[in-house]
Amino acid sequence: MIERIVIIGTGLIGASIGLALRQAGFTGAICGFDASGSELSAALEGGAIDTVLHSRAETLEAAETADITLLAVPVLAILDWMHLLAPILKPGQLVTDVGSTKLQITEAATKLFAGPEAATFLPGHPMAGKESGGAALAEATLFHNAMWLFTPTPDHQQSPIDAEWRGWIAKFGARTLNLDAAHHDELCAWVSHLPQMLSTALTALLEDTFGTDPARRAEIDAIGGRALREMTRLGASPYSMWRDVALSNTGPVAATLLALEQRLQHIRENLKTPELREEFLLANKFHESR
Amino acid sequence: MIERIVIIGTGLIGASIGLALRQAGFTGAICGFDASGSELSAALEGGAIDTVLHSRAETLEAAETADITLLAVPVLAILDWMHLLAPILKPGQLVTDVGSTKLQITEAATKLFAGPEAATFLPGHPMAGKESGGAALAEATLFHNAMWLFTPTPDHQQSPIDAEWRGWIAKFGARTLNLDAAHHDELCAWVSHLPQMLSTALTALLEDTFGTDPARRAEIDAIGGRALREMTRLGASPYSMWRDVALSNTGPVAATLLALEQRLQHIRENLKTPELREEFLLANKFHESR
Repeated sequence: MIERIVIIGTGLIGASIGLALRQAGFTGAICGFDASGSELSAALEGGAIDTVLHSRAETLEAAETADITLLAVPVLAILDWMHLLAPILKPGQLVTDVGSTKLQITEAATKLFAGPEAATFLPGHPMAGKESGGAALAEATLFHNAMWLFTPTPDHQQSPIDAEWRGWIAKFGARTLNLDAAHHDELCAWVSHLPQMLSTALTALLEDTFGTDPARRAEIDAIGGRALREMTRLGASPYSMWRDVALSNTGPVAATLLALEQRLQHIRENLKTPELREEFLLANKFHESR
Repeated sequence: MIERIVIIGTGLIGASIGLALRQAGFTGAICGFDASGSELSAALEGGAIDTVLHSRAETLEAAETADITLLAVPVLAILDWMHLLAPILKPGQLVTDVGSTKLQITEAATKLFAGPEAATFLPGHPMAGKESGGAALAEATLFHNAMWLFTPTPDHQQSPIDAEWRGWIAKFGARTLNLDAAHHDELCAWVSHLPQMLSTALTALLEDTFGTDPARRAEIDAIGGRALREMTRLGASPYSMWRDVALSNTGPVAATLLALEQRLQHIRENLKTPELREEFLLANKFHESR
């Protein structure tokens, strides 16, 4: 029975998990730590956590007696916490994370959480979020109908606490799927990281082209419709949420970007040839087979 | 008083204008022609037009006695109709269009609809549409809150019928704005044509990468969320709607595509450097100043 949960990182995802747990009927203790005092206060005030942990030391101490330690910080910070937690936790305890890339984390888990004396590590990734972060935007329903991916290591032993945690996730309304970590990172480069970089590129380009002239800017605001809004929405995403994705999934993200650059060049060079038709037909086919 | 309108092209936009006219209280005659018999039938059945014109000859004959001839076909077909209409129409009659690019049409209007014996030509562009076309999807409210752009020639004389047509457009709930034609085409390349080509490129790339393997395709369908849906929505747009845009606005579209390719390359080469932060900050700034 899970009775004590420590949430490290009480931003949008961490705080939403706290709220989702409460809405699903979890009555145990939820302690939270965040490097930002205001995120921590917002999570406490919103009811996502019931106890504030004031320091890294206090957080490690709380984790020692927790059933679950949930790492809801950026990927590189998750790796740091894994190194701190592995030596002090024991079998029967679960550490899980919500990092956007999974290969580095899963490889670290294979090394750090191995052997009969180790706690269990379950690498996870809820596909949910908003273009802005923060505990103030947290919602108990954030994971409703979302996909919650797991990338357990090949020798992962399903433990009772593991199954219980998956049970809570099902109560959040999320579906779960197990994937190989490298495969996860390649797929997420296509469906999430490329769209983000693309929207950032387009939005930065528009800011460079129109941002310095209020009259020109007013014109595109007046003329731009749904297409422009959709394509630039993710341009509002903060660097802090994406830096670690770019650093920990560089190869797959670069590969998808290069492929798209080449595709755009092909379209540009064929604006007046029948090749353009082939591109539209291929894109149409993607939608028809959905 | 406008009493007779001929709509040439009864697809999504043409039929929606017919419906919007009726909803706004227009009680005159609306005749329609379309190269596709099924579009024409759908427009008649939906109430967008009340009389079907069966041939080009019949359409030109109807235009001779119409107050307004509305060209709601692709840009190159608009240019064709302008050449047919100019010699047979007279002062007091209005020809207007809804073409997505305006420079070629406005330049043709300057030549074809000039002098004391000519009808008036008002180049127009309602910024409304859907990723799929056709009279069956037409709606009387399609132009509600939309921007309806005009690119009159510098020597355009505002006539009474011109003002009356703008009055109907206001009743559709649309806002209007006059722009220089070349400037219109440059702006629309940024806010409309680039987003379309980008979505087509990304969607075609996804089809190439995942379309041939049902298992891989099922994975991205399961994992992909709002970002992917938004970025690929316009990939459903048909070539037939965009061929003429690519042909008649090649320079501006190619320029925006090249700029985006360079921006994506810059991001790709800086996934691990602080330059990535600058791109995110620029994109954020675009949203903050909205």
